[in-house]
Amino acid sequence: MYVGKARAYTNIALIKYWGKKDEHLIIPMNSSLSLTLDAFYTETSVYFDETLTEDIFFLDGKKQDPKQTAKISNFLDLVRQQQNLSLFAKVDSRNFVPTAAGLASSASGLAALASACSTALDLQLTETELSRLARRGSGSACRSIFGGFAEWQKGDSDQNSFAQPIPSDKWEEELAMLFVLVDDGVKDISSRDGMKRTVETSSFYSGWLENVEPDLVTAKQAIKEKDFNKLGQVTEANGLRMHGTTLAAVPPFTYWSPESLKVMQLVRAVRKQGLPCYFTMDAGPNVKILVEKKNLAALKNFLADHFSEQQLISAFAGPGIERIPVERSEEL
Amino acid sequence: MYVGKARAYTNIALIKYWGKKDEHLIIPMNSSLSLTLDAFYTETSVYFDETLTEDIFFLDGKKQDPKQTAKISNFLDLVRQQQNLSLFAKVDSRNFVPTAAGLASSASGLAALASACSTALDLQLTETELSRLARRGSGSACRSIFGGFAEWQKGDSDQNSFAQPIPSDKWEEELAMLFVLVDDGVKDISSRDGMKRTVETSSFYSGWLENVEPDLVTAKQAIKEKDFNKLGQVTEANGLRMHGTTLAAVPPFTYWSPESLKVMQLVRAVRKQGLPCYFTMDAGPNVKILVEKKNLAALKNFLADHFSEQQLISAFAGPGIERIPVERSEEL
Repeated sequence: MYVGKARAYTNIALIKYWGKKDEHLIIPMNSSLSLTLDAFYTETSVYFDETLTEDIFFLDGKKQDPKQTAKISNFLDLVRQQQNLSLFAKVDSRNFVPTAAGLASSASGLAALASACSTALDLQLTETELSRLARRGSGSACRSIFGGFAEWQKGDSDQNSFAQPIPSDKWEEELAMLFVLVDDGVKDISSRDGMKRTVETSSFYSGWLENVEPDLVTAKQAIKEKDFNKLGQVTEANGLRMHGTTLAAVPPFTYWSPESLKVMQLVRAVRKQGLPCYFTMDAGPNVKILVEKKNLAALKNFLADHFSEQQLISAFAGPGIERIPVERSEEL
Repeated sequence: MYVGKARAYTNIALIKYWGKKDEHLIIPMNSSLSLTLDAFYTETSVYFDETLTEDIFFLDGKKQDPKQTAKISNFLDLVRQQQNLSLFAKVDSRNFVPTAAGLASSASGLAALASACSTALDLQLTETELSRLARRGSGSACRSIFGGFAEWQKGDSDQNSFAQPIPSDKWEEELAMLFVLVDDGVKDISSRDGMKRTVETSSFYSGWLENVEPDLVTAKQAIKEKDFNKLGQVTEANGLRMHGTTLAAVPPFTYWSPESLKVMQLVRAVRKQGLPCYFTMDAGPNVKILVEKKNLAALKNFLADHFSEQQLISAFAGPGIERIPVERSEEL
């Protein structure tokens, strides 16, 4: 039996990953930049064992159905193929999120799985190699290998598409991200399907692409200069642009709910009052607000008139991937 | 004294006017298509008189400030220049709208003023010439010269940029438009400023432009075929695309409020239930729903759970410009 376990933290893109150039290898259309967060993480154990007759996937203690398991098997196949291994595996994954609000992320999940596999099979991967492997599971997972700010350089092949940390002099430790949970049960279009439809049909997509590189330059400059407003402005503009592309897709769609827009309005309002903070959104209705740690309490206070405590979740910069020893009792 | 009076109805674009090629002559970047509506109209009287020492503008019985009056004077200057006339004028304008919800439109206002001036000075304009004149006051006013469906052909000069009616075999009489008033007091960016910023800064603008002609072809085909779903789909997609362009403007902005998005979600929901209807929005948070007359009651009934009677205003296809005799008592 080969066993490995790892913990990976989720990351939120400030400059978004939006569109695949290669659906199979998961080579993105554009580079992206993220902040890894401490509040949301996944711990995953993997056991390759000859007694197994199929792959088994437990998520938060529950055995998953064949459809969910197939996604994991696809990733395991990749590892098995590379290693000439023919063993099935049991994957035991736990999401640690502040509430049950469905904030589990494929980024932390696949990063943890990649690292657990690497440990189990003693692959001796560099961080770059681990980032590349995680990318094959879920694009944004490649950024969760690293703590703090990370940039996924799009590259143009399996070899050169991976994330790396952005030098920041630990500036991220002064920042926070406030999650505003507004999920109203609207059935979403998955990130994967949404970006696919957008790349294939949206007449705005070229406009999106031509702005990503300038946005990345601005964001990295802001990190270098520790200029919060500069980073916030480019984050908010880039996120809005990403969401704008979906309105020209055929057929058009949006990830926004009425409550999402309410949060955006409140962020603009509190900013006008002199509290610097900026929103971003991903493929769902929840809103994330980038704010300096020193202003987090004031921001929460402002939002408390509109949202419950359970809807407001604070997160701070988190670490990169962590290997975890497997305890005897956890074994297969 | 030269006196004239006219009534003009507002129109709602199904294929939007969004962007000026010539700010002064008001030549648009793209052609557009609209439905003139009966529920909203403006009656305007104009009196050119030698006893006046300046232009005076009354709106709904209230004398307007110099800033508001300047807009009217600019239009009067154009007429005076063309006619070699040096008289000042009093303009008395009344908006007839179902509520005081700020739905007065510059389209009906400037169309009525253009027609009143034409009558007062006995300009003997053809409808095309009147449409061109109204266009100089407010772009979309050129479409309000005509009842039912009208197309504003963008042209490329003052001479060839005007609206004309679209043959429809009176199909518009089977249609309705339901206004959902959700204005929540958010201060808007004017249509004029919004399109200017978008044309100048949005990387999505070229994507907008390249789709307008195909949308117009589809819309005219739908009118010809009396295909409600085809017309509705292209209306909704075109409107969403217009609003998408603002998210890539620098800085980005939106006309949407949380309530706007709620209406969009409800329209999608009722459509899924089998009631065909489609939304469109202009430079503000109110939503207009295109629906067949026969389904209007059911639509209102569905929305009544979410909006008050005062928020739901029904409109039907309206007539073109109407000259009105000036009564003795109304004179200067």
